[in-house]
Amino acid sequence: MSVKPSIPKGTRDFGPLETARRNYIFDTIRSAFRLFGYNPIETPAMENLSSLMGKYGEEGDKLLFKILNSGDYLKDIPNGELEKKDSLALATKISEKGLRYDLTVPFARFVVQNRNDIQLPFKRCQIQPVWRADRPQKGRYREFYQCDADVVGSDSLWNEVELLSLIDEVFKNLKIRVATKLNNRKILSGIAELIGESDRIIDITVAIDKIEKIGIEKVSEELYAKGISEEAVKKLLPILELSGSNTDKIASLADVLKDSEIGSKGVEELKWIVDQFDALGHQCGLEVDVSLARGLNYYTGTIIEVKALDVEIGSITGGGRYDNLTGVFGMPGLSGVGISFGADRIYDVLNKLELYPESVTESVKILFLNFGEKEAAECMKLVKSLREKGISAELYPDNAKLKKQMSYADALKVPYVAIIGESELATGELILKDMSSGEQTRHSIKDFSL
Amino acid sequence: MSVKPSIPKGTRDFGPLETARRNYIFDTIRSAFRLFGYNPIETPAMENLSSLMGKYGEEGDKLLFKILNSGDYLKDIPNGELEKKDSLALATKISEKGLRYDLTVPFARFVVQNRNDIQLPFKRCQIQPVWRADRPQKGRYREFYQCDADVVGSDSLWNEVELLSLIDEVFKNLKIRVATKLNNRKILSGIAELIGESDRIIDITVAIDKIEKIGIEKVSEELYAKGISEEAVKKLLPILELSGSNTDKIASLADVLKDSEIGSKGVEELKWIVDQFDALGHQCGLEVDVSLARGLNYYTGTIIEVKALDVEIGSITGGGRYDNLTGVFGMPGLSGVGISFGADRIYDVLNKLELYPESVTESVKILFLNFGEKEAAECMKLVKSLREKGISAELYPDNAKLKKQMSYADALKVPYVAIIGESELATGELILKDMSSGEQTRHSIKDFSL
Repeated sequence: MSVKPSIPKGTRDFGPLETARRNYIFDTIRSAFRLFGYNPIETPAMENLSSLMGKYGEEGDKLLFKILNSGDYLKDIPNGELEKKDSLALATKISEKGLRYDLTVPFARFVVQNRNDIQLPFKRCQIQPVWRADRPQKGRYREFYQCDADVVGSDSLWNEVELLSLIDEVFKNLKIRVATKLNNRKILSGIAELIGESDRIIDITVAIDKIEKIGIEKVSEELYAKGISEEAVKKLLPILELSGSNTDKIASLADVLKDSEIGSKGVEELKWIVDQFDALGHQCGLEVDVSLARGLNYYTGTIIEVKALDVEIGSITGGGRYDNLTGVFGMPGLSGVGISFGADRIYDVLNKLELYPESVTESVKILFLNFGEKEAAECMKLVKSLREKGISAELYPDNAKLKKQMSYADALKVPYVAIIGESELATGELILKDMSSGEQTRHSIKDFSL
Repeated sequence: MSVKPSIPKGTRDFGPLETARRNYIFDTIRSAFRLFGYNPIETPAMENLSSLMGKYGEEGDKLLFKILNSGDYLKDIPNGELEKKDSLALATKISEKGLRYDLTVPFARFVVQNRNDIQLPFKRCQIQPVWRADRPQKGRYREFYQCDADVVGSDSLWNEVELLSLIDEVFKNLKIRVATKLNNRKILSGIAELIGESDRIIDITVAIDKIEKIGIEKVSEELYAKGISEEAVKKLLPILELSGSNTDKIASLADVLKDSEIGSKGVEELKWIVDQFDALGHQCGLEVDVSLARGLNYYTGTIIEVKALDVEIGSITGGGRYDNLTGVFGMPGLSGVGISFGADRIYDVLNKLELYPESVTESVKILFLNFGEKEAAECMKLVKSLREKGISAELYPDNAKLKKQMSYADALKVPYVAIIGESELATGELILKDMSSGEQTRHSIKDFSL
């Protein structure tokens, strides 16, 4: 009855080294969250499908992992229903629960459900896995972690400054060089208003994004091909050609959008955030980027995206402001702003650049070899006293051949090996081997410490 | 389209205070794992159903949460199959994946799948949630955490001593008083052999367990009623009456079981473990308990169970030795021993006894009130410099009424509130309010620290 073991595609096992590395990322993010006063919450892996369906678009509904109802889930389904063989329609009848798809919808649900216990503004953070039935591919998994920080119940742009400072803190601590890009949905609305093409924002931002690669002429052609008028493209030109410092870009935008109320408001917000962030003397700079349009239907103000400078991997953190997060759960009018650190992509970046501090991958500090019951008992006393000092230590459990025990020490990259054999027991001195230098020293068993 | 928000029954949301408390438990356990040299791994929440089915008995198969296949999962199901409306049979056809039911089977699967990358003996720890479609009830959830430490590939009883020391370390650090009960499956086999009732071990251990409550006479009656012969019960008497110190109990057991080879082996193992554990001078004592029979079909040697002394809640940690963990995945002959800390029950115990250190529930250390843009900008500089010293700090994001800002500080139990209003900005001195004493002091803004 032996089963060849495997795991579902798009999921991963993490061994000791990988888990230690991932915990380093989570711990770094968690510490920053704490330092900045974001309060940790956790929500269940399973949500009611009614909370999840319709929140991520039609495609998202299909990508939800749905949990088959327990018990006799077919009992109340009419035969006619089954014969139709409509998988999607039947799914909602034999499945009431789904796996969390992101942390934002569960957060919105949490806020509404726990509204009486929550003090607004509510600054929350959440580090948990999410699941999506996406086609697995390089760098895209069906189970991955999100690390979110959000504030709801406050319109203040200081929240944006805080989130940008948080990004700065996390990547400074992880030693990843990043570009933090900033835009504002209102600027995009202003641009659309300006050229009279309100429903073409996506075409336009895609075009702006290509300027550096293919040049203005080609981009203009693409826009014509998409049916945007010559006149509109002409009006767009100053935006397409936006360059220079943030100050320059903001000045140009302010000028171009001066007749659009919403556009001007967006420029004003953007300028305020950049000014305050800069005044605080942060190390990483912000980069105003009007081509940034992530989650367009979702965000209503600030849009943030972080890219690693030294690895090509897409966005490793992103977020923005949304005006009506909790409306769909019956609590309208709560503004929020948040970011999500993509732990799995950050993990890929750190792996590529090998940016882990040595301490992260350290195993147990000292291994005591096992030469028999009496010797081992003596070792265990030392193991215990080392642990009481906070030093991780262990005894090789079996009285195995020396070669086997040493290859265990090598495989685990143990920095020190201690030997108490029969003669060491007699002399009261153990042998300590420094595994990196190979040097061996003798120490009194009685007073031994590291 | 507003949905009244709720979560699936048997699952829980954890707010900031609860999450902080739970993280304290996980961190305490994780630190002990590290100190003892157990290597962390993580496995996916979803396993192939083929890895899970048949591992937890017929009842267990029903309690697995099964994931509906993505896409047109009904396409290849013959109509005849659907008309039968056999929910259980159909489940395996429309569902290939299930949620992890415990950490032991995924660990076994991990070991076999990654056998070439693993150095034996392999000491692993794993802290992750598991899911069971149990009927929810007080203290029983459908999503809960397990914190497991296991060693595979070593027969040495030092592993048992280590796990018992680990239990000692964890509960000492959590300040929970516990009784750690110890038994050995071989002793139970010996007892069954002795009385010629090999298939009645469970009846017998249940009876032994009741001695303290209902007395020997009633227990004997129960055993007769279950068809166990008078002669057998007579032979059992010394075991039923087992009392006194571990040494006394072990001596009695050794005597009663002297003619059973397997029983004697069990007593010998038990004695060795107790002796070595005691020799190390641990604070918590072990308690030999032959009524302990958890997971009888599973364990083959040592059986361990931990109960809290000051709260009635059942076992909060348990484990034992199993001889053929990985056999079902095609890798026979690997012996293992492990324990599982029940984090959710430990959480209930800590909540009842209020055993959390104060630092656990501490929120942000200092809140700067917001009196307008200029004042807030000055505050943010201090917030940044405090954070650089590792002190958690935040600015109230909105220039709201003082009362609202102070009630936020109260709700979050912030220890310090700092005030920089117009006049403080002018004098260069801020007001610091100690929220527990109510005392207010003035400090230079320029050199301010906590």
